[in-house]
Amino acid sequence: MEETRLFLQHFGLEFFGTMLLIILGNGVVANTILKKTKGNGQGFFAITAGWGFAVLVGAMVASALKGVAHLNPAVTFAMVVQQTWFNANGWYLLPALLLGQLVGAIVGQIIVDIFYWKHIKDTVTDQPDFVLAIHSTGPTHKNNFFNFFAEFIGTFVLVSAILAIGKYNTFSLGAWGPLFVGLTVFGIGLSLGGTTGYAINPIRDLAPRLVHFVLPLKNKGSSNWSYSWVPVLAPSAAGLVGGAIFLLF
Amino acid sequence: MEETRLFLQHFGLEFFGTMLLIILGNGVVANTILKKTKGNGQGFFAITAGWGFAVLVGAMVASALKGVAHLNPAVTFAMVVQQTWFNANGWYLLPALLLGQLVGAIVGQIIVDIFYWKHIKDTVTDQPDFVLAIHSTGPTHKNNFFNFFAEFIGTFVLVSAILAIGKYNTFSLGAWGPLFVGLTVFGIGLSLGGTTGYAINPIRDLAPRLVHFVLPLKNKGSSNWSYSWVPVLAPSAAGLVGGAIFLLF
Amino acid sequence: MEETRLFLQHFGLEFFGTMLLIILGNGVVANTILKKTKGNGQGFFAITAGWGFAVLVGAMVASALKGVAHLNPAVTFAMVVQQTWFNANGWYLLPALLLGQLVGAIVGQIIVDIFYWKHIKDTVTDQPDFVLAIHSTGPTHKNNFFNFFAEFIGTFVLVSAILAIGKYNTFSLGAWGPLFVGLTVFGIGLSLGGTTGYAINPIRDLAPRLVHFVLPLKNKGSSNWSYSWVPVLAPSAAGLVGGAIFLLF
Amino acid sequence: MEETRLFLQHFGLEFFGTMLLIILGNGVVANTILKKTKGNGQGFFAITAGWGFAVLVGAMVASALKGVAHLNPAVTFAMVVQQTWFNANGWYLLPALLLGQLVGAIVGQIIVDIFYWKHIKDTVTDQPDFVLAIHSTGPTHKNNFFNFFAEFIGTFVLVSAILAIGKYNTFSLGAWGPLFVGLTVFGIGLSLGGTTGYAINPIRDLAPRLVHFVLPLKNKGSSNWSYSWVPVLAPSAAGLVGGAIFLLF
Repeated sequence: MEETRLFLQHFGLEFFGTMLLIILGNGVVANTILKKTKGNGQGFFAITAGWGFAVLVGAMVASALKGVAHLNPAVTFAMVVQQTWFNANGWYLLPALLLGQLVGAIVGQIIVDIFYWKHIKDTVTDQPDFVLAIHSTGPTHKNNFFNFFAEFIGTFVLVSAILAIGKYNTFSLGAWGPLFVGLTVFGIGLSLGGTTGYAINPIRDLAPRLVHFVLPLKNKGSSNWSYSWVPVLAPSAAGLVGGAIFLLF
Repeated sequence: MEETRLFLQHFGLEFFGTMLLIILGNGVVANTILKKTKGNGQGFFAITAGWGFAVLVGAMVASALKGVAHLNPAVTFAMVVQQTWFNANGWYLLPALLLGQLVGAIVGQIIVDIFYWKHIKDTVTDQPDFVLAIHSTGPTHKNNFFNFFAEFIGTFVLVSAILAIGKYNTFSLGAWGPLFVGLTVFGIGLSLGGTTGYAINPIRDLAPRLVHFVLPLKNKGSSNWSYSWVPVLAPSAAGLVGGAIFLLF
Repeated sequence: MEETRLFLQHFGLEFFGTMLLIILGNGVVANTILKKTKGNGQGFFAITAGWGFAVLVGAMVASALKGVAHLNPAVTFAMVVQQTWFNANGWYLLPALLLGQLVGAIVGQIIVDIFYWKHIKDTVTDQPDFVLAIHSTGPTHKNNFFNFFAEFIGTFVLVSAILAIGKYNTFSLGAWGPLFVGLTVFGIGLSLGGTTGYAINPIRDLAPRLVHFVLPLKNKGSSNWSYSWVPVLAPSAAGLVGGAIFLLF
Repeated sequence: MEETRLFLQHFGLEFFGTMLLIILGNGVVANTILKKTKGNGQGFFAITAGWGFAVLVGAMVASALKGVAHLNPAVTFAMVVQQTWFNANGWYLLPALLLGQLVGAIVGQIIVDIFYWKHIKDTVTDQPDFVLAIHSTGPTHKNNFFNFFAEFIGTFVLVSAILAIGKYNTFSLGAWGPLFVGLTVFGIGLSLGGTTGYAINPIRDLAPRLVHFVLPLKNKGSSNWSYSWVPVLAPSAAGLVGGAIFLLF
C-alpha cells in the first residue's frame, strides 16, 4: 500500500513538473515564432530564457514535496548509473518517474497546442516547419555525427551541473537546485543550442513529436521522424556516461 | 483595537505592494511602447522582465514586515480555499487584503499616467490602443474560449508555483519567495503572454481599466469593457481551482 | 585614533564601491551608444541590465568588510532620517560616506573616459550629446514638474526596496542585499527610466557632470547645467521622504 | 601519495571547470556570430549573458568537491599574492591549478570547434575574422596603452569582486560564490567589453589562440599573435595588483 502511494506520488510529481516544463518551454517557442503573437520576433535569446524559467518552475514545483524532480530521462538514467537514490528509495520508482515524464510531456504539449491554436492556424500555411518547431527540435545541418555530438555534449554539461549541485548540502532543502539548473539550461541554450536546438532531454523531444504526429491539422507537414532518434539516444547516452564519470570521483 | 491595527497594517502593506507592482509593471509597458521614451522599441522581452521585477519589488517590500504579500486576488482566493492562513490569522483580514489591492492598483496606475503623461500625449493621436495597453490587457484574437483558457492556464502556473514555494521552510523568512515568484512571472510572460497579454491577476487588469475609463484625455478611445470580464474571472477561477488541487496532496 | 581609522575605512569603502558603480554603470552606456564599440546598438535593455550589475558589484564589494554600502546620497539621507545606524555608529561617519561617494564617482568617471577615449573621439563630432550621456542623465521632455516627479518616484521605489530589505534578518550577512538592490535598480531602469534616464542618485549625476565640464575634449558641447539640479534635488528629497515614511511603520 | 592524489584532484577539477568555461563561453560567441546557427544575430548582450553562465556553470561544477575553482590564472595569481590559501593547502598545488586551466581550455576549445564545425566552414570564406573571434579576443582600436588599460581594469573589477565574495562566510559552502562571480562577469562584459572584448583571463585567450593556430582549416587567416600578449599580461598584472591591494585592508 505504502509502495503504491509512493509510486503514484512520484508519478504525479514528475507528471506535473514535466507538464509545466513543456507548457512553458514550448510555449516560449510558440510565442516567439508563431504569427501574430505578442512576443513574435523576440529572437533566440528569449527562447533560451523561457526554457531556463521552464526548468526552474517545473523543477521547483515538482521537488517541493519529495525533493525529487528529474523531468528528463537523461537525468533519471544518470541516477540509475549512480544507484544511490534508487537503492535508498526503491527501484520500483523508476517506471513511475519515466511514465510521469512521458504522460506529463504529452499533456503539456496538448495544452500548448490549444493555448496557441489560433496562431498555429495563422502560421501553418506559410511555415509548417514552425509548427513542428513548437513541438520538437531539428538540426541546421542534418549530419548523424555532428547532431549526435551536439546533443551529447549539451546533455553532458547539464548532467555534470546537476550532479555537482547535488554535492552541495545546502541544496537538500529549498528551491536553489531548480534555480541553478534553470540558469544552466539557459546557458546551454545560448551556447550549445545553435546547431540542433538543444533537446538535451529524450522525452521533451519525443512526446511532443508524437502529439505533432496525431495533431488534426491540415498541411502540417512531416513530423521528421528520420531525425527523431538523435535527440532520444544522444541525451540518454550522455546521461549514462555523465553518471558513470561522476562515480569515479 | 489590535484587530483594527492588524486590519490597517495588512491593508497598508497590500496597498503599498500592489502600488509598486503597477508602477513598475505598467511602467515598463509605457517605457516600451509609448513614443519618444528612452526605452521605446525594447520589445516584448523587456516587458516580461519588467513585470518580473515588478513582482519581485512589490512582494519584497510588502512582505518585509508581516511575511504576507498577495498583490493579486487570484492568490488571495487560493489562500481562501486552503483556509490555513485565514484560520490562523483571522478571516476579517480578507477584505483588508482585497481592498488594499484595489486601492493600490488604482493609485499605482495614476502615478504611471502622471509619470508618462507627456508620452501618453505624444502617442494617443496615432495609437490610442497603446494608451489602453499601458493600463489593461487585450487579446490578439478575441475568442471567449481561447482567451479564458489562456488566462486560466497562466494563472494556474502562477498559483502552482506560489503554493509550491510555500512548502519550502527556508522561505518562511526572507526575500527568496518574492524572487522566485518574480522569476516565475517573468517566465509566464515569455511563454504564456503571447495571446492575451497575461493579466493573470484580476485587479491588475480591472483597476487600471477603471483609471483609463475616467482618464481626462481626448481621443483616448474605448476602454474595451466587453473583454474586461475575462482577465477578472479566468484568473479568479484558476486561483480557486489551483488552491483546491493543492489541498488534495 | 579608532575614529580616524573608522572614518578612513568608511571613506575608503564608499569610495571604492561608488567608483565601481560608475565604472560599470556609465561603462555600459558608453559600450551601448558610442561608435565602433563591440556593444554598439545593444539598446536600452542592456543599459538597464548593466546598471543593475553595477549596483550589485559596487555594493557587494563595498559591504564585504563592514556591511555598509550606500553609494548614493539619497540612501545616506534616508539613513540620516532613520537615525538608527548613525546613532549606533557615530555621526562623524556621515561626511566620510558622502565624501567617499563624491571622490569615488569622480575617479570612476575618469576611468570610464580613459577606457572609452578612442570611442569618445569617434563619436563627439556627430553626437556630442552621446558623450554627455555617458556622464549624466537628461530628460526627453524638459519640464520641471514632470522631471522632478520622475526622479522622485524612481528614487522613492529604490529607497523603499532598500529599507524593506533591511528588515530581513538574513540579510545582515552576505551578498544578498546587493543582489536584491541590483535587481531593483534593473527593474527601475526598465520601468521608470523612460523619461529622465533614472539618475535616482545625486552623486551619480553630479560628479560625472563635473568631469564632463572639465574634460579636455574639442566640440564636446554643453554640460547641460540648467537641468543638473533636478537629478540632485529630487532623489535627495525622495530619500528624506522615504526614510520618514518608513519611520512611521 | 596523498599529495599526488590532491595534485591530480585539483588538476582534474580545474581542467573540468575550465573546459566547461570555454565550451559555454566560446560556444555562445559561435552561436551568435557564425553563419546559419539558430542564435545568429542575437547580439552582444547574449554573448555577455552566455559568458556569465559559463563562469557560473564552470565554477559551480569545479568547486563542488573541494570548494576551489579559479579557472583563470589572474585569480590564481591574486591568491598567490594573498598566500593564505597556498600556505594552508600547499604550494605544490600551484602548478596543478595552472596546468588544469591550460589543458582544460585547450580541450574545451577543441570541443567548440567540432561542435560548430559545419558553421565554421560556412563562415570562414567570407569572415575569417569571425572564426578567430570564437577563439580569442581582439581590440576595436589597436593601441598598446588603451588595450592594456582595458584588460587591466576589467580584470581588476573581477578580482575585486572575487576577493570581496570570499569575505562572506556564507559562501564557504554552496554555489553562491559561482553565481555572484558569474553575474559579475556578465556585468563586466556589458560595461567593459566594448573595446577589447574582455579576455580578463590569460588562459581563456591564449589556449584557444593556440588551437586556432593549429586548426586544419583553409583560409582561416592570421591568429593575430601580435596582439596576444595584451590579454595575457594585463589580466595577470591586474590579478597581482588586486591581490596586493586587498592585502592592505
